[in-house]
Amino acid sequence: MSDKYARFVDCLRPQADLAAALSLLEWDQETYMPEGAIDGRARQIGTLASLLHERQTDPRFVELVDELATRLDSLSPEQAVDVRETKWRLDRRRALDPELVRKRSELHAQARSVWIAARESGDFGLLAPYLQHIVDLEREVAGRIDPSRPPYDVLLEEFEPGATTDGLEQVLGQLRQGLKPLIDRLRARLERGAALSRALHGHFPIEAQKRFNLMVAVSLGFDLRKGRLDEAAHPFSTSLGDDHRITTRYDVSNLTYALYSTIHETGHALYEQGLDPTAFGLPRGQSCSLGIHESQSRLWENLIGRSEAFWHYLLPLAQEHFPSLQSVTAQEALQVVTDARPSLIRTESDEITYNMHIILRFELEQAMIDGRLAVSDLPQAWAEKMQEYLGIRPHDDRAGVLQDVHWASGAIGYFPTYSLGNVYAAQMLEAAEAAVGPLGPQIERGDFHPLLDWLRRNVHRRGQALRPEELVAAATGRTSSPKALLEHLGRRVEFLES
Amino acid sequence: MSDKYARFVDCLRPQADLAAALSLLEWDQETYMPEGAIDGRARQIGTLASLLHERQTDPRFVELVDELATRLDSLSPEQAVDVRETKWRLDRRRALDPELVRKRSELHAQARSVWIAARESGDFGLLAPYLQHIVDLEREVAGRIDPSRPPYDVLLEEFEPGATTDGLEQVLGQLRQGLKPLIDRLRARLERGAALSRALHGHFPIEAQKRFNLMVAVSLGFDLRKGRLDEAAHPFSTSLGDDHRITTRYDVSNLTYALYSTIHETGHALYEQGLDPTAFGLPRGQSCSLGIHESQSRLWENLIGRSEAFWHYLLPLAQEHFPSLQSVTAQEALQVVTDARPSLIRTESDEITYNMHIILRFELEQAMIDGRLAVSDLPQAWAEKMQEYLGIRPHDDRAGVLQDVHWASGAIGYFPTYSLGNVYAAQMLEAAEAAVGPLGPQIERGDFHPLLDWLRRNVHRRGQALRPEELVAAATGRTSSPKALLEHLGRRVEFLES
Repeated sequence: MSDKYARFVDCLRPQADLAAALSLLEWDQETYMPEGAIDGRARQIGTLASLLHERQTDPRFVELVDELATRLDSLSPEQAVDVRETKWRLDRRRALDPELVRKRSELHAQARSVWIAARESGDFGLLAPYLQHIVDLEREVAGRIDPSRPPYDVLLEEFEPGATTDGLEQVLGQLRQGLKPLIDRLRARLERGAALSRALHGHFPIEAQKRFNLMVAVSLGFDLRKGRLDEAAHPFSTSLGDDHRITTRYDVSNLTYALYSTIHETGHALYEQGLDPTAFGLPRGQSCSLGIHESQSRLWENLIGRSEAFWHYLLPLAQEHFPSLQSVTAQEALQVVTDARPSLIRTESDEITYNMHIILRFELEQAMIDGRLAVSDLPQAWAEKMQEYLGIRPHDDRAGVLQDVHWASGAIGYFPTYSLGNVYAAQMLEAAEAAVGPLGPQIERGDFHPLLDWLRRNVHRRGQALRPEELVAAATGRTSSPKALLEHLGRRVEFLES
Repeated sequence: MSDKYARFVDCLRPQADLAAALSLLEWDQETYMPEGAIDGRARQIGTLASLLHERQTDPRFVELVDELATRLDSLSPEQAVDVRETKWRLDRRRALDPELVRKRSELHAQARSVWIAARESGDFGLLAPYLQHIVDLEREVAGRIDPSRPPYDVLLEEFEPGATTDGLEQVLGQLRQGLKPLIDRLRARLERGAALSRALHGHFPIEAQKRFNLMVAVSLGFDLRKGRLDEAAHPFSTSLGDDHRITTRYDVSNLTYALYSTIHETGHALYEQGLDPTAFGLPRGQSCSLGIHESQSRLWENLIGRSEAFWHYLLPLAQEHFPSLQSVTAQEALQVVTDARPSLIRTESDEITYNMHIILRFELEQAMIDGRLAVSDLPQAWAEKMQEYLGIRPHDDRAGVLQDVHWASGAIGYFPTYSLGNVYAAQMLEAAEAAVGPLGPQIERGDFHPLLDWLRRNVHRRGQALRPEELVAAATGRTSSPKALLEHLGRRVEFLES
C-alpha cells in the first residue's frame, strides 16, 4: 500500500502546482492585469481549470484513490486522512465533466469582470443575465453531484464539509434570535442620538498607510518572506503554494478602512502560513474549511483588532505614522472601531449587525437556488430583508445587491461560512485564553505569539485531519454554538451604552 | 481537411493559454514574488512546462499535425504556414521526453535564482555547478533533437529558425572585421582624452522617472490597455496572451539607464502588440524569431532613440519631468547617448562596441557546448577575449561572466540574435525611410506612427509566414548583410570625432 500511497502523492502535488498557477492568474487579474487582457485571462483560467479537473478525474488517479479508500486500515492515520478527504472531494468532482468545468470557470471570470462595471455604474441589469446563468449552472452542478438532496445543501458542502442546511439554520437561527434584542438596543441608542465619532478620520497619505498596514500585518506574525500585501478593489487573500498574498484597499480620509481589511486578510494568511509545509499539496497540509478560515480572519480582525489591549499597543505606532493622531486616546479609538449601528455595506458594517447581513444573504441565495426567488427580483427582496432585519433600505444597488463579488464569482453557499467563522472564533478565543492565560497584557506589549502558537497547534497544524465541527470540538472542548459570540457581542453593546 | 485544421487550432489555443500561465509565473518571479517562494515557484514552472510539453506531444495532436503536413496543398496559404511551423517545432519537441523537459525547466528556475545571489556576491563558484548542469543538459537536448549535427547548430535554431552556424559566422565575421577599425578609432579618440559628458547625470527621483518612462513608452505607441511597465533586476518583456508586459530598472542619478531599457523593451512589446490578434495561439500570430524581435527593440532603442530628431522631441518633455535639465541642449544630450568607448557591461555598452560583447559570448558559448571550454575556465576565457576585442579586462566576475542571466536561464544560442537584430534593424530602417520618406521631421514632432505602421505591415503582421531571412528580404528587398549597420556606426564614429 505504501507504494500506492507514494504514487497518490505524486499525483496530488502537480495538481497543487496547477491550482497555484490558477491562483496566480486570479490574483494578477485583481491586482496588476491591464483591463484589455480580460478576455484572454478568462480563457487562460478556463483552460487551466479544465486541465486541473482532468488531472483530478484522470482514470488512473481515480482508480488509485478508490483502491486506497477501501484499504484505509492499512495506512497510517495521517495517510488515511489524505485519502479520505481526497476521496470525498473526488466524489464531488467526478460528477462534473470537463466541458461543464470549463464553462463554469469562464463564466465566473467574465461575470467578475462584468460585476466591476455593474458596480461602478450601479446597474444591476448588466450583471443580472450573468447571475442567472450562474444560478442555473450551480443548480445543474448540484444536481450532477447529488440529485437526491436539495441543491443548496450540496453547494454548501463545497465550502463547509460536513455542514448541513438544517444544522446551519439552527446555529444561524439562534444567532438571529440572540441578535434581535442587541440590534433593538443599538437602534434605541441611535434614537437617543449617539453620534459617530470621527476621532480616526483625517488625512492619511496612502504611502504612509501602506507602510502602516504592512507593519501591522508583520507585527501579528505575517511572514513577508512568504507573502505580499497589495491593493485590490475587493480585499482577498490567496495562496500560490507556500506564497501567501493578501490585498487591501485604501481611503485617504479613513484609517480603519484599510486597517481592518488588512488585519482580516492577515488572519487568513496566518492560517495558511501555519499549515504543515511538509504536507504540501495533501489534505493534511490544507485548510479545513471556509468557516474555519473565517474564524481565523475574524478572530484577529474583531476579537483582537477591536480589543482595548490592541489599541493600547497600536495607538503609539499609529501616531508615529500619522502625527495628526497625537491627541487621540485609546478609549476614543476604541469607540470608533467598536461602534455599531445598522448600515448598508457588509464589509463596512460592525461586528454585531454584520451577522444580519450574512443571514440575509444566506436566505436569499437559498431562495434563488431553490427557485423561490427570480434573479430579477433580487434587488427588491434584498431591500425588504434589509428593512426587516436592520430597519434600513439601500438607496441604490451599489449599496445593495451589487456590493459583493461572491455571487458573481459563482460562490453560492459561501456567505454562511462568515458567520460560522464568527461563532467559531469567539469559542476558540475563550479556549485559548483558558489555556495560555489572560491575553490582554501580552497584546498590550505587542506579543501575539502565545495566541498564534495556540492557534498553530490547535487549529492550523491540523489541516484537514478533522472536519470543521470536530476541529472546533477538539480545540475548544465543546460543540459549536453561538453562545460565546453572543456573550461577546452583548459586552460590546454594554460598552457602547455606557 | 478544414475539419482537421479546425481541430488542430482547438489543440493549439489551449497550449497558448498554458504558455501564457507559464509566462505569468516567470514574470511574477522577476517582479513581485516573495523570495521565500522560489522553491515552490520552480516546481510550479516545472509542472506547467511538463504539462505543456505533454500537450505539444500528445499522440492525437502529433498525428493530426503529421497528417495535415502531408496535405499542405489542400490548405489555404495561411493554414499551411500554421501547419508547417507547428510541424517544425513539433519535430524538435517530440525528441524530448516529459521528464527531461521537467528537469530542464526546474534547473533553469533554480539557476536563475542562484545567479541573482552569485551576481550580488560576485561569486562565480556559486553558479558554476548549475551552469555545468545546464551545458550538459543542453548538449543532451541537442543530441536528442538531431544527433547528426553539431550541438550548437541545433541549439541556435531554437531562437533563429533557419539560421546556421556557418551563416552566422559569415555575418558576425564581416561585422567583426568592420568593427575593428571603428573600435581602433574610438580608442584613439580616448587616448586623445575624450571626456565622458555628464550632461544627463544628476538627481532624478524614481517616481518622476517612472512617470517619464511610461510617457516615453506610450508616446512610441505602447498600448497600456494591453500592457504594463514594472521594475525588475534585469529588464525583460513578456506576453501573456494579448497582455504585453515590459520591465525596466532605475538609477536615481542616471536618467538614461532606465530610459534606454524602457525604449528597448517597448520595441519588443510594439512587435507583440502588432501581431495579428485573430491568429492568437497560431504561428501566423506569433513572432518570427528572436533576431527579428531584437531588430524591433534595437531599431527603437538605437536608431530612433539615439537620433538627433528624437532628442529634439524628447528634451522638452524630459525638462518638464526634471527641471534640473533646463540648461541642457539636444546636442549635449546626443553626445551623451551616442558616446562610444570600450566598457565591461554589455547592457550598458554603446551601440558600436556592443556587437563585440555579443561576438565574445557567441564564441564562448560555442566553445562550451563543443566541449572546447570548461565552465570553470569561463571567467579566464572571458577576460582574455575582452582584452583582445575591446582592450579591457573585467575587475571581477560581476563585471564579467556574471553580468547576464541568459546562460543561467538555459538560453545558449540566444546571444547571437542580438547582433542579428542590429543588422536587420539598420537594413529595415533604410527600407522604411525609402518607403515613407524622411523620418526626421515626423520624429521631431513626436509622430512615430508612419514608421510604426510600416513595421506593422512589413514585419509585425507577417507573424511566422516567412522565416527570418525571407522576412528581411521581403521587407527590405535585399538579403541580410551588416552593410547598413556598419555605415550607420561609421557615421556615429564620425560624429564623435567631430
